[in-house]
Amino acid sequence: MSTKKGILERLREGPVIGDGGFVFALEKRGYVKAGPWTPEATVEHPEAVRQLHREFLRAGSDVMQALTFYASDDKLENRGNEAQTKYTGHSINQAACDIAKEVAAEGGALVAGGICQTPSYLSGLGKAVVQSEFRKQVQVFVENKVDFLVCEYFEHVEEIEWAIEVCKERSLPVASTMCIGPEGDLHGVSAGDCAVRMAKAGADIVGINCHFDPATVLKAIRLMKEGLVKNGLTNVFLMTQPLAYWTPDCNKQGFIDLPEFPFALEPRICSRWDIQKYAREAYEIGVRYIGGCCGFEPYHIRAIAEELAPERGRLPVGSEKHDPWGEGLKMHTKPWVRARARRDYWENIKPASGRPHCAACSEPSSWGVTAGDTDLKQGRAATSDEELRQLFKR
Amino acid sequence: MSTKKGILERLREGPVIGDGGFVFALEKRGYVKAGPWTPEATVEHPEAVRQLHREFLRAGSDVMQALTFYASDDKLENRGNEAQTKYTGHSINQAACDIAKEVAAEGGALVAGGICQTPSYLSGLGKAVVQSEFRKQVQVFVENKVDFLVCEYFEHVEEIEWAIEVCKERSLPVASTMCIGPEGDLHGVSAGDCAVRMAKAGADIVGINCHFDPATVLKAIRLMKEGLVKNGLTNVFLMTQPLAYWTPDCNKQGFIDLPEFPFALEPRICSRWDIQKYAREAYEIGVRYIGGCCGFEPYHIRAIAEELAPERGRLPVGSEKHDPWGEGLKMHTKPWVRARARRDYWENIKPASGRPHCAACSEPSSWGVTAGDTDLKQGRAATSDEELRQLFKR
Amino acid sequence: MSTKKGILERLREGPVIGDGGFVFALEKRGYVKAGPWTPEATVEHPEAVRQLHREFLRAGSDVMQALTFYASDDKLENRGNEAQTKYTGHSINQAACDIAKEVAAEGGALVAGGICQTPSYLSGLGKAVVQSEFRKQVQVFVENKVDFLVCEYFEHVEEIEWAIEVCKERSLPVASTMCIGPEGDLHGVSAGDCAVRMAKAGADIVGINCHFDPATVLKAIRLMKEGLVKNGLTNVFLMTQPLAYWTPDCNKQGFIDLPEFPFALEPRICSRWDIQKYAREAYEIGVRYIGGCCGFEPYHIRAIAEELAPERGRLPVGSEKHDPWGEGLKMHTKPWVRARARRDYWENIKPASGRPHCAACSEPSSWGVTAGDTDLKQGRAATSDEELRQLFKR
Amino acid sequence: MSTKKGILERLREGPVIGDGGFVFALEKRGYVKAGPWTPEATVEHPEAVRQLHREFLRAGSDVMQALTFYASDDKLENRGNEAQTKYTGHSINQAACDIAKEVAAEGGALVAGGICQTPSYLSGLGKAVVQSEFRKQVQVFVENKVDFLVCEYFEHVEEIEWAIEVCKERSLPVASTMCIGPEGDLHGVSAGDCAVRMAKAGADIVGINCHFDPATVLKAIRLMKEGLVKNGLTNVFLMTQPLAYWTPDCNKQGFIDLPEFPFALEPRICSRWDIQKYAREAYEIGVRYIGGCCGFEPYHIRAIAEELAPERGRLPVGSEKHDPWGEGLKMHTKPWVRARARRDYWENIKPASGRPHCAACSEPSSWGVTAGDTDLKQGRAATSDEELRQLFKR
Repeated sequence: MSTKKGILERLREGPVIGDGGFVFALEKRGYVKAGPWTPEATVEHPEAVRQLHREFLRAGSDVMQALTFYASDDKLENRGNEAQTKYTGHSINQAACDIAKEVAAEGGALVAGGICQTPSYLSGLGKAVVQSEFRKQVQVFVENKVDFLVCEYFEHVEEIEWAIEVCKERSLPVASTMCIGPEGDLHGVSAGDCAVRMAKAGADIVGINCHFDPATVLKAIRLMKEGLVKNGLTNVFLMTQPLAYWTPDCNKQGFIDLPEFPFALEPRICSRWDIQKYAREAYEIGVRYIGGCCGFEPYHIRAIAEELAPERGRLPVGSEKHDPWGEGLKMHTKPWVRARARRDYWENIKPASGRPHCAACSEPSSWGVTAGDTDLKQGRAATSDEELRQLFKR
Repeated sequence: MSTKKGILERLREGPVIGDGGFVFALEKRGYVKAGPWTPEATVEHPEAVRQLHREFLRAGSDVMQALTFYASDDKLENRGNEAQTKYTGHSINQAACDIAKEVAAEGGALVAGGICQTPSYLSGLGKAVVQSEFRKQVQVFVENKVDFLVCEYFEHVEEIEWAIEVCKERSLPVASTMCIGPEGDLHGVSAGDCAVRMAKAGADIVGINCHFDPATVLKAIRLMKEGLVKNGLTNVFLMTQPLAYWTPDCNKQGFIDLPEFPFALEPRICSRWDIQKYAREAYEIGVRYIGGCCGFEPYHIRAIAEELAPERGRLPVGSEKHDPWGEGLKMHTKPWVRARARRDYWENIKPASGRPHCAACSEPSSWGVTAGDTDLKQGRAATSDEELRQLFKR
Repeated sequence: MSTKKGILERLREGPVIGDGGFVFALEKRGYVKAGPWTPEATVEHPEAVRQLHREFLRAGSDVMQALTFYASDDKLENRGNEAQTKYTGHSINQAACDIAKEVAAEGGALVAGGICQTPSYLSGLGKAVVQSEFRKQVQVFVENKVDFLVCEYFEHVEEIEWAIEVCKERSLPVASTMCIGPEGDLHGVSAGDCAVRMAKAGADIVGINCHFDPATVLKAIRLMKEGLVKNGLTNVFLMTQPLAYWTPDCNKQGFIDLPEFPFALEPRICSRWDIQKYAREAYEIGVRYIGGCCGFEPYHIRAIAEELAPERGRLPVGSEKHDPWGEGLKMHTKPWVRARARRDYWENIKPASGRPHCAACSEPSSWGVTAGDTDLKQGRAATSDEELRQLFKR
Repeated sequence: MSTKKGILERLREGPVIGDGGFVFALEKRGYVKAGPWTPEATVEHPEAVRQLHREFLRAGSDVMQALTFYASDDKLENRGNEAQTKYTGHSINQAACDIAKEVAAEGGALVAGGICQTPSYLSGLGKAVVQSEFRKQVQVFVENKVDFLVCEYFEHVEEIEWAIEVCKERSLPVASTMCIGPEGDLHGVSAGDCAVRMAKAGADIVGINCHFDPATVLKAIRLMKEGLVKNGLTNVFLMTQPLAYWTPDCNKQGFIDLPEFPFALEPRICSRWDIQKYAREAYEIGVRYIGGCCGFEPYHIRAIAEELAPERGRLPVGSEKHDPWGEGLKMHTKPWVRARARRDYWENIKPASGRPHCAACSEPSSWGVTAGDTDLKQGRAATSDEELRQLFKR
C-alpha cells in the first residue's frame, strides 16, 4: 500500500469517487437492523460486508471506508442496544478495517476510518467524554494504517470540531462532513460558518453527507464554498455524500423527520440519471470528493463514475454491464423498448410513482427539539412501554 | 438432499416462500446488463450470485431457483448478444445449478431449474424449434437432480403449453407461471383459460409471475382460480411471484410498456409493508407458493416470511435484524422516530414520492404489436443505427 | 317562436350545443344550497338565474333548459327541505319556464323542460306515485309551450322508462339521459341495454349526463352506441352532458361517492382545453347533442362552441372576448406569457395541482347500497342527530 | 351615503371584508379577455358587472371596488389593444363607478376606486408620465365621491410610492397593496421595506394583493408587519387580497410565471375550506382588511365572512344558502353523503386532483427580466408574427 497516491494527491489530480450507503444497503440485504444500524455486521457477517465493498469498488469507488458507523462504545450500549453484550467496540472496528483493507487491495483503493456523532454529546456529557469515545476508534484506525480519517454525520459543528481535534492528534489527512442542509447546523450556525470552522479546526476536506437529497446538498455546499472563499480558506477540498432519496419537503433536520423514515422511503429513491446529474453539478461547483450516503447502491456510484469518465479518463469495471444512457436496450426484444436506447430519453424522463393515492410531499415531524433538550437525553436503558405510549400520543 | 420433503408435499403442509428478482437485483449490484439480462453472471461472478442466493435463503426463501433466466441458446445469441461468443449455454446453466445447489444445502431449501419464453417463438419458428431450446436447458437441470422444474415468464399460453410438455417428459413436478394480468395473454386468451390450459398440460402448480404489481397479480390469480374451479381442476396449487413495483397504469403488456422501464422504476418500488399486505391477501385467496419477481430484494422476501410466520410456525433467520412493524426504532436517538415503532403507523403509511414535478401515473407505450407482427421478429444481428433512428421517431 | 327550427331538425343539420351546470354554478354564486340544490332560486332570485342563462346563450348554447332540477314536489319536501313551506312546486317550475323563455328569445335558442329521478322511486313507492310526480312537472312545461322535454339524471333505467312514458303522453320530442358510466345502471343493466331501453320507450335522443368526467362519459356513450347499432336503433340521436370534473377514480356511482363531493372538487375542474378535446371526440363518435352538467361554467360551453365552429359555421358571441388557443396573450406585458399564445402550448399542457400534499386519486365511499336498500328510504323528516352520529361513525 | 362609517372607522371596529377577483370571474363568464383583461366590460356589459358586484355584496363584501383594473389610458392602447379605438378611458372608469355605487347602496357597502401599475413605468417613461396616468383615473374617482382610494397590483415599490403620492393630493383614505411575496419587490426591496415605504408615502392601509396563494401572502404580510413594527409604524392597517389559486411552486414573480397561467389554473383553485383557514390566520396575524383577488368567486368571499362571523357578529346574506361546514348535506339522499355533514370532515380533507398524469408542482418560467430590461418595453403596436416566432422558440 506504500506506493499508492494519497487522498490529497488524488484530489489535486481530479475527482475522487466515494462509496455508497452501507447501513441502508445491508439493512435491505438482511444484515443490519434499522435504528441502531448495528455495525457488528463486520464481525457477524463479514462476507456480506465484503461483497458490498467489492460492488462499490467495481462501481468505481476510490475509497473503501471501513464500516464503523455508530461503532463508538457509547452508541453500542445506548437505549437497550445488545451489541455490547456480545462484542467489544474494538473488535467491531478491527473487523471493519480488515475487510476494507482486503477489498481496497484488490483495486488500488484507499482505506478510510470514520467517526460520527455520539450519544454522549447529545446527552451533554462534555468535551472530555466525547473526545475519549472518538479517540478509541481513531486508535484502531491508526493501528491499521488507514490512509485517512473521516469525521462524518455531525449535526452540531461544535462536536465535529472536537472530532477533528482528536484526528489531528495523528498525522493523517482528515475529511470532515456534517449532515446539514442550507439552513445550517441544529444550533443555528450557518452552513458557511460550519465550513469555515471545520477548516480552521484542521480538516483538509470539508463538506456534507447524509440527511438531504443531492440537490439540497449542492445548495448547501455552495453556501459552504462561499463561506470558505470569503475567509480565504481556499486550500481545503470540497466533499459531498448526499442521500439517494429525494427530500424536497424536509426541514432543517433532514430525512429523519420525514414520516417515511426509515421504512417507507422507496418512492424517493433516486434513479441513476438523477445521480449523473448530481455528479456533473457537484463537479462544476468544484466538489472533488464525490460520493453518496444512505440509499446509494452500487449502481448509483457507477453513475457518478460514468458521468465523470471524461475527467477521470476511464470507466469503472462495472460498466461492462452498463452501456451509457440505456444503450444496452438496443438488444431488447420489443421495438418500443429499443426506442428508449438513447440519452435524451433517459435524461428527460420524469418517472411516475405508480402511487395515485399518495401525495408528492410529506409534512416533516418538526418536533423542534435539539441537543440540550431533555427529550434528547440518551441512556443505556431501553425505552419503556410507558415512555413509548407517551411518544405514540404525540 | 434425498430426505428433503418435495415441493408438492411442502405445499400441502402450508405456504412455501419463493425467492426474489435476481436479474434486477444483480443489475443494480453491477453484474447483469439490462436488456439481455446476461445470465452468464453465473460463470463470470459466481460469488455475487451466491451472495444473493444466501440473502434470499436468510430472508426465508424455501426455494433456490437457479439463475437460468434468458439462458436458452437462441436468446444468448439474439440481437448482437455477445454471451454466446464467450460461453456455451450449457456452461451457464450448469454454473447456475452449482450455485443454487450449494446454497440450498446450507438451509434445507429446494432447488428448481427454470425455462422461459424464447425469441424463437416470437419469430414464429414453430413448436419443434422452440421445444428443442427448452429441452437443452431441462437436460442440464435433470442431470443436476433439481427438485422441480419451473416454466415462467410466458406471454402466450401456447408457448407455455409447449414448455410444460417438454418438462413432463421427465418425472419432476412442474410449476408454471405466465407474465399476464387480468386481461389475459397477448393473444387474447383469458386468465382463467390460461390457468386451465396450463393445468391440463400437466402443470402441478400454476400461476403468475412478473409484469404486474402485487395487487394486479392477485386480481388475475382470482380469475385463474375461478377458471380452475369451474373446470374442476382444484388439485393444482396456485403460485404468485409479482413485481415489487407498483403498476396501476399498465396495459395488458405490463411494466415493459411503462416509459420508466427498466431504468427509472425507482419511485414504484414497493415498501416492506406493501409486501406484507400482498402476502396476507395471497394466502387468503389460497395461493400457496408465494414469492416475488423483478424488484424483490431480500427484505421483501423477509416481509412475506414475517407476515406468514404464524402459518409457518417460524420466523426467517434474517428477522434477527428486523423487529416486527418497525419496533427496532425503539432504540432510535430521536423521540419522534421512536414514536414510529408501532404497527398502525407503518400499516397505514401513504409514502410521498418526494417528486413534486412528477406525475402519479404514466401512459404505457401501447404500440399494440404481439407475436406474429414483423416488428417482433428476432435475429442474431444487432439493431442497426438506421433501424434505431426509425424507432426513435415513433 | 313558431318559426324556429325544432330540436330534431337542428340535430339532423349538425351539432347542437347544450348548456352547463346551473346548480353548481349558482351554488358558488350564492343562490342555491348544496344537497337539496334548491330550485326555488327561480322564484327567489330570478335575476341571478337569468344572468347565468344569458352567459350560456352568449357562450353558444342552443338550448335554454329551464332550471327545474330536483323541483318535483316529493323532492321539495324531502328530508327537512323547507322549500315546500314557502313555495308551491308549480310556482318554481313556472318561474323557471318564464326565465328560460325570456332568455331563449334573445338568441333564437330552444326551450326545454326537464324531469329527473325522484325520492319516491328510491323509497320504492311504485310506478303510479312516481309517474304522478313527473306528470305535474310536465304539465307546466306543456302549458308553457317548451320546445322539447328532457328526462335526465336517472340512475335506474326502470325509472327513466317511466319518465319517458309520461313525456310521450304529449307530442313533444323527448331527450333522455342517465347518470351512468361504462358499468351501467345501479341495478346492473349495461350501458348498451340502457340505451336500447330508452330508445324503445320512445326517446328521440338518448345518452348520458352528470356523475362522470368527459372521458368516462364518452367511454360509456360508445357502449350505448354499440347497443343501439346491434339492435338496429340507429334513428335516435346521441347526447352527452358530462361533469366538468375529472373522475378517473370513481366507481359505478360516480362523483357522489368521491370524498370531495360536493365541497372540495376544485382540483378536478376541467380546463377549457380539456373541454375542447371532449367536444371533438364526442362529435367524432357521432354525438350530436353536446353539452355539460355540474361544473360546466360558461367558458366551458364556449370551448365546445369554438371547437365545433367549423362544423357549425360560426363562433359564439362570447368569443369576442376569447381568441382561439390563447392567442389573446399576444397582448400580454411579459414576453414569456406572450410565448404561450399558441395552440401546441395549451393543447399539450399538463396542469399541476399546486397541492404537493394531496394525492392524485381518491378512494370512493363504496358503501354499495342501491335503490331498495333500507338505507336509501327517503322521507319528509330531517335526519336526526342520532342518525347523523351513526352515519359519522361508518 | 353621507352617514356611512368610513373605511378607517370600520377597520378600527373590526375586520372589513374585501371583494373577489372581477377580471378572472368575468373572463369565465365571457365578458373579459385574458391578457388585456378588458375593463371596457363596464361599458359593454354593465349588467354582468353589476351581477358580480351583487354576488360579492351578498357574500359579505363590505367594499365595492369599481372595476377599473388596467383602465389607465396607456394600458388601454398598449400592444394592439383595441379598447381605445372604441371607448375613452374616462368613460370606462365612469361606468365602473356608476355600477359600484349602485350596488353599494343596496347594502351599505363602501365604494373604492383603484389604480394599478402602468406600462409607462415598465417602459421607463419616468415619474411625470406615470403620475399623469394615475391622476386621470383618480380625478374620475373623486368626482364620483368614492369613499377611499386603492393603489394595488404594483411589482415595484417605487411606482406605488408615486401612486400614493398622487392619491394623497386628495383628502381620501388610501389603501396600498403590492403583488409581491416573501422575496420582496422585483427590484430586490424586501417585503418589510416595501411596507415601510408605503406607510411613509402616506398609505393608511398597506399590504399585498394577487400573485400568490393565501399561505404565501400571509408569510409575506408577517414580514411586512415586522418591518412596520421595527419602524414604529403601527398606526397603519394591514390588508391582504391573495389569489384563490395554490402557488407553492412560484418564484418571486408569482403566478404569472407558472406555465398554467392564465388558462389552466383550474387544479389550483382553493376550496372554501382553504379560504376559511386563510381568513382565520389573517385575522390572527392582525390583518383587518381581508379579501381576495384573482380566482376568488363569491363563495370564497362568503367563506371569509362565515369564518369571521363571531368577530363581526353576523353572517352574510348569502349564508342562507350555505350551512356551516357542510351541514346542508344532512338533507342529501345518500347516507354516505350525509355522513360528510360535519366540520372535521371538511376541515381535514386533502382533495385529490383526479389528474394522475399531472404533477403536483410546475417549474416557473423564470426568464428573470424585470423593469428596465428591453424585453419589457411596452408599446402601442401589436406583437408581430416574427416577434412571436422568436418568443415561441425561447
